Amino acid sequence: MKLVRIGQPGAERAGIIDEAGSARDLSSIVGDIDGTVFASSVMAELKALDLSALPVLPDGRFGPCITGVGKIICVGLNYYDHATESGFEAPKEPVLFMKASSSLCGAYDTVEMPVGGEKLDYEVELGVVIGATAKNVSIEDAADCVGGYCIFNDVSERAFQLEGTGQWLKGKSCDTFGPCGPWLVTPDEIEDIANLDLTLKVNDEVRQKANTRDMLFGVPELISYISRFMTLQPGDLIASGTPSGVAMGMNPSRYLKPGDAMELTIDSLGRQRQVVT
Amino acid sequence: MKLVRIGQPGAERAGIIDEAGSARDLSSIVGDIDGTVFASSVMAELKALDLSALPVLPDGRFGPCITGVGKIICVGLNYYDHATESGFEAPKEPVLFMKASSSLCGAYDTVEMPVGGEKLDYEVELGVVIGATAKNVSIEDAADCVGGYCIFNDVSERAFQLEGTGQWLKGKSCDTFGPCGPWLVTPDEIEDIANLDLTLKVNDEVRQKANTRDMLFGVPELISYISRFMTLQPGDLIASGTPSGVAMGMNPSRYLKPGDAMELTIDSLGRQRQVVT
Repeated sequence: MKLVRIGQPGAERAGIIDEAGSARDLSSIVGDIDGTVFASSVMAELKALDLSALPVLPDGRFGPCITGVGKIICVGLNYYDHATESGFEAPKEPVLFMKASSSLCGAYDTVEMPVGGEKLDYEVELGVVIGATAKNVSIEDAADCVGGYCIFNDVSERAFQLEGTGQWLKGKSCDTFGPCGPWLVTPDEIEDIANLDLTLKVNDEVRQKANTRDMLFGVPELISYISRFMTLQPGDLIASGTPSGVAMGMNPSRYLKPGDAMELTIDSLGRQRQVVT
Repeated sequence: MKLVRIGQPGAERAGIIDEAGSARDLSSIVGDIDGTVFASSVMAELKALDLSALPVLPDGRFGPCITGVGKIICVGLNYYDHATESGFEAPKEPVLFMKASSSLCGAYDTVEMPVGGEKLDYEVELGVVIGATAKNVSIEDAADCVGGYCIFNDVSERAFQLEGTGQWLKGKSCDTFGPCGPWLVTPDEIEDIANLDLTLKVNDEVRQKANTRDMLFGVPELISYISRFMTLQPGDLIASGTPSGVAMGMNPSRYLKPGDAMELTIDSLGRQRQVVT
């Protein structure tokens, strides 16, 4: 299933994509696409639906494909080449940081340059949405805790992130720094999560191109590892790290400017596009 | 007003403390104590209530005094003596990090030693709950964005925080690492937020004793500063930093062990007590 949220910010309606690619209105069945939809009873009800019997949602903005996100846990330096280009060694255990949930936006929304921002950067990432509570979960059981997958752009302001005092969140949490979607894709639709191509273009130039098989720590390892330090709850989002090719890693660096367009794709998860304002 | 949430985890009821110190049931007026209660219409309704006409809530567990917390922004090294004891210089701008909202618990709940944890530590802090959206807000306007204050214990596992790879959140976000309350106290009840004594005892021995006037960056400065990097929303929580006296800063360090009791007080905000399990 491909779940979506369509409508203006704060007024999105829950939907599901049918075989023809149209969004059907789910709002008579679920209140919204949040952590509660992953309950097995709700999932079973959704899977049994005759989508042709549901009203077609009018075309509109794609909101973030999940709402009620309790936390966003980001994984740093999770592709070897990106660790190297960032001036770090490949980490021996996952590097974690947080991003404020208030940064979430839709797949086609504009990305705002924050006041004082100069070093705006992009990061295509596989987003993992938690579907079942995970605390000290084993690697073997971790896949059962996934509710769905989506494209995630971990937008960053590198001066805020790295040149001030303190931790990375300052450059990760600005409004619109978390384009998420367009679809939340349930795991049954994906043949092999460890074999998906990811790409990111800026103004039609390919900047990032990789495959999720290149991740240093795969999705089950990440869920298991994170769940040792905190309980993952339905609706939480893991941003699983970005491959090489970010603007900061280029020589000279090529940060985003107002008017630049980012286009992101991940196999089976669709496409995003954001223009910087 | 002193707002509370009373009941078992996940089943708390909203309440308000009356002149005699009893909790009166607010659940006929507000759904819960979350970011929505700070709307001016709701605040006006609450202030106009005849509390004696409301049912008394039966005695019970104090839950976290606020729910629906979108993010917890913690301020590091915000008291000169604590920066020094931690081996850092006093920062020139606020040091920020995040703590998962899933760590929140009640003022008298037990604090769990996480699996593999050895260096459990405490931090008494003034908690600031946001009442109105703040984005790029000035220091002058920042006080208007406060919804209330509470005691916050920024419980930490120092090996997870500092000895692994990556950022501090690993040692800050475990379940029960965020005792919060017992009351959420509205600003009108506090004469001077920059002149409140804070204390923390472990097994009746005073470990931390300071006054909020010793903060390097005061509440308005913190709100203004954070709002440059992310939008603060009603219900968000700022943990404004801890004074000296943490277990890590002692020579030799004196980390918490199962059975130890922490007792925290802040003027006008009540008292917390947690036992480590």
